[in-house]
Amino acid sequence: MTVTAAVVGASGYAGVELFRLLVGHPEVKLVGAYDIRNVGKRVSEVHPNLRGLVDLRIVKPDYAKIGKQADIVFVATPHGIAMKFVPKLLKGGAKVVDLSADYRFENVRVFERYYVKHESPRVKAVYGLPELHRARIKHAKLVASPGCYPTAAILSVAPLIKRRLIDLDHIIIDAKTGTSGAGAAPGEITHHPITGANIRAYAATTHRHAPEIDQELSKLAGRKIKAHFTPHLIPIVRGILSTTHVFLRKPTSVKALLGLYRKFYEGEPFVRVLEELPEVNFVVGSNYCDIGFELDARSDRLVVVAAIDNLIKGASGQAIQNMNLMFGFDEARGLEAPALRP
Amino acid sequence: MTVTAAVVGASGYAGVELFRLLVGHPEVKLVGAYDIRNVGKRVSEVHPNLRGLVDLRIVKPDYAKIGKQADIVFVATPHGIAMKFVPKLLKGGAKVVDLSADYRFENVRVFERYYVKHESPRVKAVYGLPELHRARIKHAKLVASPGCYPTAAILSVAPLIKRRLIDLDHIIIDAKTGTSGAGAAPGEITHHPITGANIRAYAATTHRHAPEIDQELSKLAGRKIKAHFTPHLIPIVRGILSTTHVFLRKPTSVKALLGLYRKFYEGEPFVRVLEELPEVNFVVGSNYCDIGFELDARSDRLVVVAAIDNLIKGASGQAIQNMNLMFGFDEARGLEAPALRP
Amino acid sequence: MTVTAAVVGASGYAGVELFRLLVGHPEVKLVGAYDIRNVGKRVSEVHPNLRGLVDLRIVKPDYAKIGKQADIVFVATPHGIAMKFVPKLLKGGAKVVDLSADYRFENVRVFERYYVKHESPRVKAVYGLPELHRARIKHAKLVASPGCYPTAAILSVAPLIKRRLIDLDHIIIDAKTGTSGAGAAPGEITHHPITGANIRAYAATTHRHAPEIDQELSKLAGRKIKAHFTPHLIPIVRGILSTTHVFLRKPTSVKALLGLYRKFYEGEPFVRVLEELPEVNFVVGSNYCDIGFELDARSDRLVVVAAIDNLIKGASGQAIQNMNLMFGFDEARGLEAPALRP
Amino acid sequence: MTVTAAVVGASGYAGVELFRLLVGHPEVKLVGAYDIRNVGKRVSEVHPNLRGLVDLRIVKPDYAKIGKQADIVFVATPHGIAMKFVPKLLKGGAKVVDLSADYRFENVRVFERYYVKHESPRVKAVYGLPELHRARIKHAKLVASPGCYPTAAILSVAPLIKRRLIDLDHIIIDAKTGTSGAGAAPGEITHHPITGANIRAYAATTHRHAPEIDQELSKLAGRKIKAHFTPHLIPIVRGILSTTHVFLRKPTSVKALLGLYRKFYEGEPFVRVLEELPEVNFVVGSNYCDIGFELDARSDRLVVVAAIDNLIKGASGQAIQNMNLMFGFDEARGLEAPALRP
Repeated sequence: MTVTAAVVGASGYAGVELFRLLVGHPEVKLVGAYDIRNVGKRVSEVHPNLRGLVDLRIVKPDYAKIGKQADIVFVATPHGIAMKFVPKLLKGGAKVVDLSADYRFENVRVFERYYVKHESPRVKAVYGLPELHRARIKHAKLVASPGCYPTAAILSVAPLIKRRLIDLDHIIIDAKTGTSGAGAAPGEITHHPITGANIRAYAATTHRHAPEIDQELSKLAGRKIKAHFTPHLIPIVRGILSTTHVFLRKPTSVKALLGLYRKFYEGEPFVRVLEELPEVNFVVGSNYCDIGFELDARSDRLVVVAAIDNLIKGASGQAIQNMNLMFGFDEARGLEAPALRP
Repeated sequence: MTVTAAVVGASGYAGVELFRLLVGHPEVKLVGAYDIRNVGKRVSEVHPNLRGLVDLRIVKPDYAKIGKQADIVFVATPHGIAMKFVPKLLKGGAKVVDLSADYRFENVRVFERYYVKHESPRVKAVYGLPELHRARIKHAKLVASPGCYPTAAILSVAPLIKRRLIDLDHIIIDAKTGTSGAGAAPGEITHHPITGANIRAYAATTHRHAPEIDQELSKLAGRKIKAHFTPHLIPIVRGILSTTHVFLRKPTSVKALLGLYRKFYEGEPFVRVLEELPEVNFVVGSNYCDIGFELDARSDRLVVVAAIDNLIKGASGQAIQNMNLMFGFDEARGLEAPALRP
Repeated sequence: MTVTAAVVGASGYAGVELFRLLVGHPEVKLVGAYDIRNVGKRVSEVHPNLRGLVDLRIVKPDYAKIGKQADIVFVATPHGIAMKFVPKLLKGGAKVVDLSADYRFENVRVFERYYVKHESPRVKAVYGLPELHRARIKHAKLVASPGCYPTAAILSVAPLIKRRLIDLDHIIIDAKTGTSGAGAAPGEITHHPITGANIRAYAATTHRHAPEIDQELSKLAGRKIKAHFTPHLIPIVRGILSTTHVFLRKPTSVKALLGLYRKFYEGEPFVRVLEELPEVNFVVGSNYCDIGFELDARSDRLVVVAAIDNLIKGASGQAIQNMNLMFGFDEARGLEAPALRP
Repeated sequence: MTVTAAVVGASGYAGVELFRLLVGHPEVKLVGAYDIRNVGKRVSEVHPNLRGLVDLRIVKPDYAKIGKQADIVFVATPHGIAMKFVPKLLKGGAKVVDLSADYRFENVRVFERYYVKHESPRVKAVYGLPELHRARIKHAKLVASPGCYPTAAILSVAPLIKRRLIDLDHIIIDAKTGTSGAGAAPGEITHHPITGANIRAYAATTHRHAPEIDQELSKLAGRKIKAHFTPHLIPIVRGILSTTHVFLRKPTSVKALLGLYRKFYEGEPFVRVLEELPEVNFVVGSNYCDIGFELDARSDRLVVVAAIDNLIKGASGQAIQNMNLMFGFDEARGLEAPALRP
């Protein structure tokens, strides 16, 4: 079976990454590349790594039409845009994976507090973190693929929270991202002379991914959680390292914790539980989320470290993982590439 | 058809890259990982990006046995080592792709001037640059896969030399490599505090890849050529950018030159001739060699720029491309991954 | 007044940085460069940035003699070495600033738990953080200059702890360092192909700087504190960003907190309290420690960020600041250079 | 004697570097910071490394007034701007060092071919490369400080050309710059996700610094020279490495060449002739130009490598060196800082 796929938002980094991965997916035929920028150019002119591989021309989107022509539409537009046209795509009959924040929140008011007024608040999506919501993703018409930081953060502590092992008031997530997370638009913060030998914390208590983390952790806990999330920008292009500091409610052995994580993620194709702390170059270029931890038994503090490629497991790879589930393909299809190290 | 493959030199960077690529190759079954270091460890313990993917244990090599068990043996040992055991591998019946310099030189004395005394000087290999020697590679038992710099340098000027368009006495190749080219052994030159914000020229007139370039260019020219090769180390992990400055013997148009290059590389699966200058992020993560040029019509100087991933087209990808030819597979099999950009 | 200065440990990064700073210090005359490595070479052969500036030859140390010849001896040897010879230096009459950990701990058993058996446990030093111990430093014969991480971490929270504003059981210090902190000896962890596009946590609950932080914070609090310290290695050469997550005991305004910090650091020549979060390129190349914070009023979490140049305020600059105090010079003498940005 | 200094173009990278260096210059009093951007902000708000050090407010320039108030005006505006107001500054009585290209060309038509129509073509400046034009700089009212690439390129080969030792038709200058050379305005080319792990050649045959190099080399040779200049952008923030490939007209020994260079640069405060190839981290943070070479005796090719900090010797440091000459100060005053390595 082959599905036809279109990408809306062909110019950005999630876009290029979707093309890069889909071009090698044996069950997918790319049928459309849409954007309001770069109209008329070939995808490979905008993304020269794809020269000779994805030479589709970028077309101005006609959403009604796209929804009819494609079996699956990946939406990789900035936040606040997808909500304007996703209903049209769905109406056309397409399934949709939205990589933006627009449909990630169960409570639309949370979305509106952090982003903008929602224009299609009644359209509901499944939060596309397969490790937590696989069954529902399989039957979804619309999947809201998670943010990059939430993917790493949620997977880091899900087993602990599910099992109520930790103090829920002191979950500190100190995350570090590469610059590709900032997107394709140049700005001072990603200007190489400023960022090339620098590290900065930003949105230290106010990042828009925080409520997304809180939503999912709260569901796992069965009570409202406010995690403490602080992101940093470091001078690498790809990769997120998420360091979560938590406090065990009672002394627990490393062995028991390792068993817990392994059990929780048993059979997961893209979560690897390690006996060492992961580094970003264990995963960059792949769809893996590697997780490891270190226990300070004297204080019952547990440091959980997760590493992902922010553009793959943190965005386009996860979106394709969701698509695989939605169409009944092998969940790992098209996502088998190992990480590049060195 | 499935071939059985073994890698000798499992601990180094060419080794990990061979595993990374071979694990996704549909006609290859990995049957052995050999090294004198890390014996008893799993490949994935040494190379954590391969965890769950290549969990073979590294074994001390018994060459007679390996030559019998594997259809193809990739040799990724330091220079001066392969020559000690490649004859045994061949005797066992295996085909061999050697990624070291040991069999690259037609004149063994050139090898001995730049490296060490040769211990199996009578064993002859085909120089494994498919774009120049495809027919012979197909029937070879032993292929000497080219060096990273020579791959980029030779492909940059082959069409010009073949057609005798340039002054052969003033071919200046100013190349820049990422640090992975230095291999897995730490040293002062690749120590991050020294190299992380630095650029250096090294072996500016004496690099061991120079005679390899000269050998191939001389064959193309039908006369002895001494190109002027100077490498630099820059703070990127992967990638080579090779900038070649040549002087046209008579005025030639950009259009004519573009036509020449396109014709010369017509049908080549891994050479892309661009109308712009390539950058390393057009190719890193892929087996492509991208080539572009800029003409200074006032002085008839042509600046030809080529970009490759030094570990793929410059090493392990090219080795697999050679294997594909040697076994009659589609030449691009297992090497389809596009480059990562960003 | 001119003092004569010698450096023991001339080959390492603290050593070169001492020379780089001392050569411009108007009251200092460099009289000796000592090491057991590189004996006979000029300082500028080992550190080519100093060519023409510090051409002293490196001499094998004779400690009794050094202690007589120099007014001040900077000891920049690896941990566990200084303790063997500092008594001899002092006996000779020199004042000593030790940049290693050997004399940083008031309780020698703490040192011995994290390092090695102490060989001169009765020799006592002043902990050389001028912002906390200025008065005692002025009269010290031996100053133990703080570690790089402790400098940033302690200055980040000293005002809060002194004033008892925070929950002392949940002080999480998530720090990030450039690679120069690892020293001049190459190793796999600082090998550019591995670290050049990577980030890793290390010694996540066991770093040797943790007890040093605890010692100083405990003194400020008047009770025993165990902070939660986790360091990371990022691909920059210089700089530490230390992100400390703390919880206020009661709601406090940003304005009040800013007032507190400004008051606490009033008149300090090298602490700048900012109204924004500092970045490492605000300080790299200078002796400043920049501090800023962000308050999450909903949870009373305060994120305090401090930035230093690990080799200057985190090592050699601070050592010279200590020397200035010990000899009655202007505390900032020789340390006036602003940071380089970009 | 103290001179009053003003900077026009306070927001850019040459601007911040002028402030950074001037604030430590003992004979200079900063009296004005001018720009059309950031008016009303403090210099230290735009350049946070200068917080507490340069807190002057940025003022919209009134050139007639500036020319009267300041003894020396540094002009650090984009190309094509200085020519509009430098005559007014001079009329006011100030001496001027212009860091832009506007007055670098003796033949205004060359300027107009590469830049824009000149608006004050009769105003003449001295080309501010002290090593070649010291005597004239001392008496100049207006000095045109050289471009970053030309500084490194010209100093690399001046001795060879002056002594007519090389083939003037085959001077290949293959240069590599850090990203700060692109200035403070963000753009795609300096966007970290694109440039952070990349290298590109650009303006490979058409860069605007080429005619500046040709002008100076031609004067040295006494005949018209067209050098072959190709720049590259590499992922470091500061530094230029300029690799020049030349061909000796007759065999010459390394010793003789070294003698020639040493003699030519004898007494120069900021040129260091090395017996090894320089690297950018020998000079970054300093005003030095380090030069070394390697001879390929078989082909009489000489590879000359020069390293500078593009923002110091390539811009603001050199501008201050010129000022020192213009006012009779010690030429090195305020520029004594050694390079940072690591």
